[in-house]
Amino acid sequence: MSPLEWIDAQRDFLLSELVEFLKFPSVSAQPKHRADLHATAEWLKRYLEALGFTVELLEEPPVVHAYYDGPAGAPTVLFYGHYDVQPPEPFELWESPPFSPRIHNGAIYARGACDDKGQVYGHLAAWRYLHQRYGRLPLSIHVVIEGEEETGSDTLYRVLKAHGPKWRSDVALVSDTAFFSESIPTLTVGLRGLIYTEVIVRGAQRDLHSGSFGGVAPNPAIALAQIIAALKNPDGRITIPGFYDEVRKIDPAERALWQNLPADEAHYERLMGSPATGGEVGFAPLERIGSRPTLDVNGMVSGYIGEGSKTIIPAEAKAKISMRLVPNQNPQHIWTQYKAYVESLAPPGVSVDVRLLHEPAPAFETPTDSIFYKIAEEAITEAFGKRPIPIREGGSIPVLSALREAIGGAPVILMGFGLPSDAVHSPNEHFQLRQLWGGIHAAIRFYEGAAKHA
Amino acid sequence: MSPLEWIDAQRDFLLSELVEFLKFPSVSAQPKHRADLHATAEWLKRYLEALGFTVELLEEPPVVHAYYDGPAGAPTVLFYGHYDVQPPEPFELWESPPFSPRIHNGAIYARGACDDKGQVYGHLAAWRYLHQRYGRLPLSIHVVIEGEEETGSDTLYRVLKAHGPKWRSDVALVSDTAFFSESIPTLTVGLRGLIYTEVIVRGAQRDLHSGSFGGVAPNPAIALAQIIAALKNPDGRITIPGFYDEVRKIDPAERALWQNLPADEAHYERLMGSPATGGEVGFAPLERIGSRPTLDVNGMVSGYIGEGSKTIIPAEAKAKISMRLVPNQNPQHIWTQYKAYVESLAPPGVSVDVRLLHEPAPAFETPTDSIFYKIAEEAITEAFGKRPIPIREGGSIPVLSALREAIGGAPVILMGFGLPSDAVHSPNEHFQLRQLWGGIHAAIRFYEGAAKHA
Repeated sequence: MSPLEWIDAQRDFLLSELVEFLKFPSVSAQPKHRADLHATAEWLKRYLEALGFTVELLEEPPVVHAYYDGPAGAPTVLFYGHYDVQPPEPFELWESPPFSPRIHNGAIYARGACDDKGQVYGHLAAWRYLHQRYGRLPLSIHVVIEGEEETGSDTLYRVLKAHGPKWRSDVALVSDTAFFSESIPTLTVGLRGLIYTEVIVRGAQRDLHSGSFGGVAPNPAIALAQIIAALKNPDGRITIPGFYDEVRKIDPAERALWQNLPADEAHYERLMGSPATGGEVGFAPLERIGSRPTLDVNGMVSGYIGEGSKTIIPAEAKAKISMRLVPNQNPQHIWTQYKAYVESLAPPGVSVDVRLLHEPAPAFETPTDSIFYKIAEEAITEAFGKRPIPIREGGSIPVLSALREAIGGAPVILMGFGLPSDAVHSPNEHFQLRQLWGGIHAAIRFYEGAAKHA
Repeated sequence: MSPLEWIDAQRDFLLSELVEFLKFPSVSAQPKHRADLHATAEWLKRYLEALGFTVELLEEPPVVHAYYDGPAGAPTVLFYGHYDVQPPEPFELWESPPFSPRIHNGAIYARGACDDKGQVYGHLAAWRYLHQRYGRLPLSIHVVIEGEEETGSDTLYRVLKAHGPKWRSDVALVSDTAFFSESIPTLTVGLRGLIYTEVIVRGAQRDLHSGSFGGVAPNPAIALAQIIAALKNPDGRITIPGFYDEVRKIDPAERALWQNLPADEAHYERLMGSPATGGEVGFAPLERIGSRPTLDVNGMVSGYIGEGSKTIIPAEAKAKISMRLVPNQNPQHIWTQYKAYVESLAPPGVSVDVRLLHEPAPAFETPTDSIFYKIAEEAITEAFGKRPIPIREGGSIPVLSALREAIGGAPVILMGFGLPSDAVHSPNEHFQLRQLWGGIHAAIRFYEGAAKHA
């Protein structure tokens, strides 16, 4: 039975399994979901054991590690994915509950549908096919599926130090990225690095009456606004001293390739539902996303935010501020410069506390000249009918650098099947079923292709 | 029995009544407390009826109006107060629950203990004394106690239009202000006006992945920070065009009087628990509070504010921004200029919505040459042993202008007994019992003095 015939015959069964997987509220950012993370890992363990893998759950929340010992002489692929998801809030904007998966208009809706449970599931299904087709898997596979990707992969960093060298592989495969669009398949060759911070500004020891103290009280909300406003100039350039010093110039060949894509400002305005794009003046949108660093406020809170009015001057104001880094930027340099600069921007009367929320991570790149990159190209071409274009994605999978290093420096192929319209990290996240079926098909062909490359 | 003897004999009883009054969670900003507002008004109605007042509850949440028809020829005093309180949040910073009043170290702790239930209660107690002492009240009294002072007095504005002219009085008396300090009694002769607004900045139609869209997404949190930062220059001057055009110059006599008060920067740093004061360069603290307008952020929220990190670019950012106005500033002019200016500050890619949360109110002043001002001076001098100093307070009681106009332009005496250290609008609000007893004493003497002024 060909992959296409098999997928066709198994659709309902495959969807029912995916629904099971998506039902776990595996939110790593929220301590109340700790037990749910564990339950999700246990589900994966049972699933993989049924396919003949030897499975261990390492540390807590568990990193699922599974190993399939393939035919002698066959290469070893390491598959990396994550079973944790972003917080679903704000709940009220979801059209159906985030952990009650719903199939609607050719897509499956749930938190994690695309990022990354739906994509991980594509590989579970591919291994099931291969197992049925050949009676065993045609190559050796290390599976590493972690539960803290969305919160900084702290546990996986530790696990990699202890176990990574035992997982030496010929190639690592990751499906946690997206096509440029439904009609333009892509292979991601670059991801940005990430520094995620919190800035806390404190003024008086308590909230104060804004009448009695307005005129003498320091206002930490205004101070925080002044700090944030000073981080970018009107052209969208980040003002942190030295921030752009190490940024690698955009390769003219890459720039030329991207100019053929329909990725103009209007494309992004449509995707975002916004009247205009933002960002750095002087670069095309794809360049701003793929090859230029950014700084964004991810959240901000101070004082009274309930209904109506409360006439206080807040004692404290907080912001979550993150930066995406591009090749050659050293995350430790940037963090040091950022922290010193933010501290220097504090007006008198307030104190500023600048913290890392997780380990800074550098940008990540994939070479396009390896045999495994070509195998991935072929697999996508067969499954989606078009040759994929190499592209740089703006997101980050911070742990990949450590993963690559731990397993011996093998190439890491970023073969993801999401779409930019999937609303990952947002309400109503979904995954197009066409991308799911095509992804399973491509994954099958990748493993078959890799197996032949003995 | 003299007021002092009576207060001494009745302490426990008076405190038990005040505790009853403070137990109602009469938070006007939060719709869930609507029934509590009603219950508080009913409690006041029963209390006043027992003293011989004719009481009506007008509209919803009720404005308590009570009338006592005094001896022929005696003057009429209108007493104004409010029974609603500020939201108690953040609960975790209270040392005891905000609606379980606690007596500790010579003070009573509860939300509303000072602002304004404790001060209102001082008058209930004074009327009880007068009733016992004379068998009736020695003058006519209109009582107006509203339940929406903390949220803009919308209902009272309507009630005043319909009923105010029937409440014509010779003087209005308000106890909703504070002494300069425990050892420096004051009579407030000026209050600032208030404009309370909300600014909502919107970018994309949904929260976006900060990697996939960082570089092209407009960031409403950054846009809001830029708007807020642009509202003041580094000297603390507000940059709204025309904002200072109508501000009245500080009277040299008043400036000289205030220079004798121990109101230096260190005084306010101690009160606030802050390493430095803020505000406009070039003015003394008391001038900045009493005679200069201010702009403050009272609250701010955007994006993900929970634990840990969530890598989104928020779709929306909101701030509550208020201004305190001084004599001669026209609130309608300022509102118009502010709105246009904030709208003009919006960067491309975001929309800005600027709203009033309640009716703008002008600053308010009390003439110091009326007989009733002198009666209040005498009353405080007797009760607290020192002659009160006229002072301008930075807070606002927005409805007072409309009240004065509705009842025929009578002088409004601001005879309040709070202390700047009472933490009004903050966690652990309290009211010093010495101020409570002295306030009852002074109120009794004010009513007696006014009654003699036939």
